[in-house]
Amino acid sequence: MSLPFFVMSRIGIDIRGGDRAPQVVLNGLQLALGEIKGDTQVVLYGLEEDLKEVPAQCEARICGSAIAMDEHPVRALQQKPDSTLLQGISDLAQAKIDSFASAGHSGALMVASMQALGLHEGISRPAVVSLFPKLKGGQTVVLDVGINVDAKPEQFLEFARLGKAYAQSVLACKDPRVALLNTGSEESKGNLLYQKAHQILKEQEPSFIGNAEARELFNLEAEVLVCDGFTGNMLLKQTESFYSLSRQLDLEHSFLELLNYEKYGASPILGIKGKVLLAHGASGPEAIKSMILGAESFALANFAEQFSASSTI
Amino acid sequence: MSLPFFVMSRIGIDIRGGDRAPQVVLNGLQLALGEIKGDTQVVLYGLEEDLKEVPAQCEARICGSAIAMDEHPVRALQQKPDSTLLQGISDLAQAKIDSFASAGHSGALMVASMQALGLHEGISRPAVVSLFPKLKGGQTVVLDVGINVDAKPEQFLEFARLGKAYAQSVLACKDPRVALLNTGSEESKGNLLYQKAHQILKEQEPSFIGNAEARELFNLEAEVLVCDGFTGNMLLKQTESFYSLSRQLDLEHSFLELLNYEKYGASPILGIKGKVLLAHGASGPEAIKSMILGAESFALANFAEQFSASSTI
Repeated sequence: MSLPFFVMSRIGIDIRGGDRAPQVVLNGLQLALGEIKGDTQVVLYGLEEDLKEVPAQCEARICGSAIAMDEHPVRALQQKPDSTLLQGISDLAQAKIDSFASAGHSGALMVASMQALGLHEGISRPAVVSLFPKLKGGQTVVLDVGINVDAKPEQFLEFARLGKAYAQSVLACKDPRVALLNTGSEESKGNLLYQKAHQILKEQEPSFIGNAEARELFNLEAEVLVCDGFTGNMLLKQTESFYSLSRQLDLEHSFLELLNYEKYGASPILGIKGKVLLAHGASGPEAIKSMILGAESFALANFAEQFSASSTI
Repeated sequence: MSLPFFVMSRIGIDIRGGDRAPQVVLNGLQLALGEIKGDTQVVLYGLEEDLKEVPAQCEARICGSAIAMDEHPVRALQQKPDSTLLQGISDLAQAKIDSFASAGHSGALMVASMQALGLHEGISRPAVVSLFPKLKGGQTVVLDVGINVDAKPEQFLEFARLGKAYAQSVLACKDPRVALLNTGSEESKGNLLYQKAHQILKEQEPSFIGNAEARELFNLEAEVLVCDGFTGNMLLKQTESFYSLSRQLDLEHSFLELLNYEKYGASPILGIKGKVLLAHGASGPEAIKSMILGAESFALANFAEQFSASSTI
């Protein structure tokens, strides 16, 4: 994706997010700094002790506390307004940074994002994206993979619009096609939820090309694949099982490494008015590096404009 | 599994079932005849032209018609009482054979089975099983993988009981453990359906050991994994995607061959009072061979006794 030379971005990173924070996040940061653009600024949200040395291209934002992985999200947010997570989201809301990424408490990140940033017009709830590699190259934008475990059929239309805007703005895909994950290609396939979702997409989503089966996961024609959060999470988990299996069987192939969930990086949370990315709590340094690079790509993308444009067609 | 020497079985095979019937079924039969027990009798349900030569251990049952894959199931059953599929199910209902297997019309097979054989006590609808290989050896009985796409939480208990009886009677597993497929190990995980199913299993199924994540698919502790038919079918389809991927990447390992859906064989349909197996319409000779061997194992198993015993605990 080519960008005008004057575009620079400021990305916020939660140094205290993740099971092994702050050390693993700082290690991942070191890896990322070798790969980000020269004019990208990284704002580090950490405790004073974490930020005694600040690398080049980085800026320290000293916070008073951190939210632990096992805290109650709403209570933690109330009790810790000076936490790394809340400070980051607050700066994002004030446009002091262009994107914010954390491998910390997913529930707290979600609640804080919705409260401080709000939702895009026409969106009832946020959705989480996962990018699945295509065998022929490129990626499929799959959503929702976790939040909307009891999605309503109408939400699939929201997922389609969000996914398209992401594919257009971040993956530079001009005319993304949307497919519905299902158990078969015929429109009568699936359960009641998926049958209704199919009808709604068919009637209201001009880029909809029909159902896609999980057996085609790595060879999909569509660039955007929509599903409910329960099914999408299953898809993600089962992909992890394949990667684990390939490791256990000593299978080697560069494509398999694309399925390595330890390197996934972060999932953008779409639907909220602000660029927030969530990484797995168990992320290692490689995953944190990918998270930071993902936060940079997302920061540079004109997601909101693409979303507005596609919603008014 | 050791069986008393006097046990023999009669298995019925639909020669006209499958996309490439009768030839592929006859080819698969030839492969199977080299592996079945010496005293197993195979009853072949076919048209006169298919059965001009009848191999050893086989017996021809000439039928007047065959149901095509694209016929309306109920109409086809009404119009073709002399079809291979209906004759087989009818002979099974009269105990002339011990099991019946077809790669033909799944809807017609299901309707015919329910009408002619009825359901086991306490079972509201049949469920289809798929056997997933375990990395350490052995198999996991996964159900439902296709019929109950809008399952109610109470049905998960039925799946558990049916799966246990199958594991006990066919896989010779003495004390099968049951897990609920879910997106996480905590009981609050999953959507409303899975949260309710978890509670019901926890309260009423003594062999229930909790949730199992798809990421553990090939390393499950449990011998029986229960899920709704939509999610189970997704699991099956995604496993196919992984096998396809391994072929496309030229990965080789004997374990991967266990994921080869072209060789799966047949899925037993549990819940109906009779041993019916359904194979994929696209089955090749190897899959038909597996289907016939599966029909033999199922025929020899004391499924109904195990099911009754576990239901009265």
